[in-house]
Amino acid sequence: MTEASHARTARPGAVMDLADLHGSLSDPALLSMNLLNEVAERYPDAVSFAAGRPDPGDFAIEDVHRYLRTWTAHVTGGAPGGAEAARTRLYQYGRTKGVIQDLVARNLATDESIHADPESIVVTVGCQEAMVLVLRALRADERDVLLATSPAYVGITGAARLVDLPVVPVDSGSGGIDLDDLAARVREAREAGLRPRACYLVPDFANPTGLSLDVPTRRRLLDLAAELDILLIEDNPYGFFGDGIPPKPTLKSLDEGHRVIYLGSYAKTALPGARIGYVVADQPVVRDGRTVGTLADELSKIKSMITVNTPPIAQAVIGGRLLESGFALRETNRDATARYGKKLRHLLDGLAARFPGPSPVTWNRPDGGFFLVVTVPFTADDALLAHSAERHKVIWTPMHHFYAAGGGLRQLRLSCSSLTPEEIDLGLDRFASLVTDLLERT
Amino acid sequence: MTEASHARTARPGAVMDLADLHGSLSDPALLSMNLLNEVAERYPDAVSFAAGRPDPGDFAIEDVHRYLRTWTAHVTGGAPGGAEAARTRLYQYGRTKGVIQDLVARNLATDESIHADPESIVVTVGCQEAMVLVLRALRADERDVLLATSPAYVGITGAARLVDLPVVPVDSGSGGIDLDDLAARVREAREAGLRPRACYLVPDFANPTGLSLDVPTRRRLLDLAAELDILLIEDNPYGFFGDGIPPKPTLKSLDEGHRVIYLGSYAKTALPGARIGYVVADQPVVRDGRTVGTLADELSKIKSMITVNTPPIAQAVIGGRLLESGFALRETNRDATARYGKKLRHLLDGLAARFPGPSPVTWNRPDGGFFLVVTVPFTADDALLAHSAERHKVIWTPMHHFYAAGGGLRQLRLSCSSLTPEEIDLGLDRFASLVTDLLERT
Repeated sequence: MTEASHARTARPGAVMDLADLHGSLSDPALLSMNLLNEVAERYPDAVSFAAGRPDPGDFAIEDVHRYLRTWTAHVTGGAPGGAEAARTRLYQYGRTKGVIQDLVARNLATDESIHADPESIVVTVGCQEAMVLVLRALRADERDVLLATSPAYVGITGAARLVDLPVVPVDSGSGGIDLDDLAARVREAREAGLRPRACYLVPDFANPTGLSLDVPTRRRLLDLAAELDILLIEDNPYGFFGDGIPPKPTLKSLDEGHRVIYLGSYAKTALPGARIGYVVADQPVVRDGRTVGTLADELSKIKSMITVNTPPIAQAVIGGRLLESGFALRETNRDATARYGKKLRHLLDGLAARFPGPSPVTWNRPDGGFFLVVTVPFTADDALLAHSAERHKVIWTPMHHFYAAGGGLRQLRLSCSSLTPEEIDLGLDRFASLVTDLLERT
Repeated sequence: MTEASHARTARPGAVMDLADLHGSLSDPALLSMNLLNEVAERYPDAVSFAAGRPDPGDFAIEDVHRYLRTWTAHVTGGAPGGAEAARTRLYQYGRTKGVIQDLVARNLATDESIHADPESIVVTVGCQEAMVLVLRALRADERDVLLATSPAYVGITGAARLVDLPVVPVDSGSGGIDLDDLAARVREAREAGLRPRACYLVPDFANPTGLSLDVPTRRRLLDLAAELDILLIEDNPYGFFGDGIPPKPTLKSLDEGHRVIYLGSYAKTALPGARIGYVVADQPVVRDGRTVGTLADELSKIKSMITVNTPPIAQAVIGGRLLESGFALRETNRDATARYGKKLRHLLDGLAARFPGPSPVTWNRPDGGFFLVVTVPFTADDALLAHSAERHKVIWTPMHHFYAAGGGLRQLRLSCSSLTPEEIDLGLDRFASLVTDLLERT
């Protein structure tokens, strides 16, 4: 509030105290999300290993126009009155569940062997909205808790915080999830009078660890979820990006008991700027013992209160992309997958060249995805990140942001998805100089 | 769950009980929103006075392409490297606050004499998301309550329910808001140990009543809000659509003390299918007595957990529309405003012709907007709506949906924004036959 505006008015001005706003606004998870989203813009000269941004490759704005025309032609040619149907569908509000669920279902069948009724799909504004819908539905009262592999993507932690749903961390171990820990946490929570509703995980090339579950672990996890009677929330943004390895079946494709809520996103595989995600929620919902619909129907009701519906124009753009690919986005992404694989190998080789063993700096070796984790012999917190960005012009993500219960202070996440090999080399040189400086100081 | 899928699996299937899901899912507000969104699709042969849908007029899909090209040219021509900037801005995730706040700010200055710092604006997925952001921020604990003029738009009631924020109804009276009632409700709430945070209202052509506040009432409301130390949440989707009357100043344009949070939407004035809304929240926020930013900064943090950002492609479409209009959407909407005015007069004349006075059927006479309210001498509930849709092939909205605390059972809302004069006549004939049938029965 400026002095001038104060002087002009006789009415007292409104000032808000952060202490009187929702607690999430003082929560580290929200601050992390903002930091991670905007740190690269704050230091434009730095090489950023922080953002898990997709590589635009040869994307051209004209592609957006073409996708839109492909979708328009598809709707227009679909039935008598098709041209008017396409016009209305683009112009008006549409159904809350979306206008492209049939196309998403065909894509899931083609790429993931997931056979979903289009009515069990809700198209969302990015996968983030899908998380909010699911967690809002599952958080009925203060007894409810969410389990999530730890370290966890800040988006799920933040969504949970927004709906006042506590998160119980489950150890990722070295295989993506420690099943004994999962069982123990569920039992502990129940003994404490709590109601563990679901376990969130990214089975393929997880953010931030890069870890993937092997197939036997996937099957055991499904068995255990049934035994414990909890749901699994499978988030799969990176599944295509295995570096030359055969894809593993998603939990959802192995799910025969409606045990898995599947979260998908076209941000990494089609176009981030469309912000199109979706949720497959085929769980039957009963009321007084009678089936009244599916969880997707309930999520759609919540969505009607959050965004009413996902922009039809953005859905149409992704619809056109799906149509052009013959619903085979995995195939369409083959070049991108190779490009990401090459970058990841370049990063791994670059680390090995700069920190030859035995070194106090170590890292894991994911076989795909956008991320890996480096362990360092010093505290890698936000203060060091600021120092690194300003003095060494290199940005990375402190891992402690991904540990809701504390931890990860000597770890950092590197992503190279949107960097060139030259930028990776430059960034690693700078990172090595940061490490050298710090080791010399100690 | 099918028998077949049951038979195939050894693992017990997941079934969810509605009683174990968030209470909002059993709340009439959410059911209303769904009903109102989808009732017209359920009865395609009926004339629908239910939806407040904009009239597409001569909208063509090609307009979307042109808006996008206009925005692209604007960004491309803005600076060296502009083409790459436009490509990146469309392709990538962007800032959480949005990519077109500067254009929105120019539009607000031109059309509403609202002079907002672009940094105090958050672009949202429809105005609905803006409501969720504001209410989530304001609901810090169980003492907080929202005031809202009653009857109220179901979107605000639903958003409040989603964040567990009780709504205290304030009488709309015949002038849009009863200021004595507002003061009394605030005092009552405080005496009960509650914390009234803000009062939500639509000052121009409100949904569902069609009522507008006159200018002296606007000034008195601002004075009263300062005196009571509450915020005002001004929602303005219909302000352009005065039927030949001069526009009244928005509360925000009269606000000199950061007292008003302004919610805007381009759904009715540009293109519903882009789903672009926004919030102006210039309230200073302090932490431990020190200013740390504005409420918009805090809303942006919440948004990062709900949708991360509004689809840049949809923002670009609206950006192009704003650029093409020279930021003067009110002028660009002059034809649409005339069209809506003509429809409203046709509806009013049609009611007068079919229910000549003295009649047990009465209605109010808004001077603009999309809605009016009819009072009838029988119960106009969802059961009667279903009967009306099936037997008489005419749809309207039972007003009880807009009364969170009960009421409105003998009222219904009519909207004619997307109907032709012929459809209005046909719909009114059918509505008159419904009324005749019911009056003959009693």
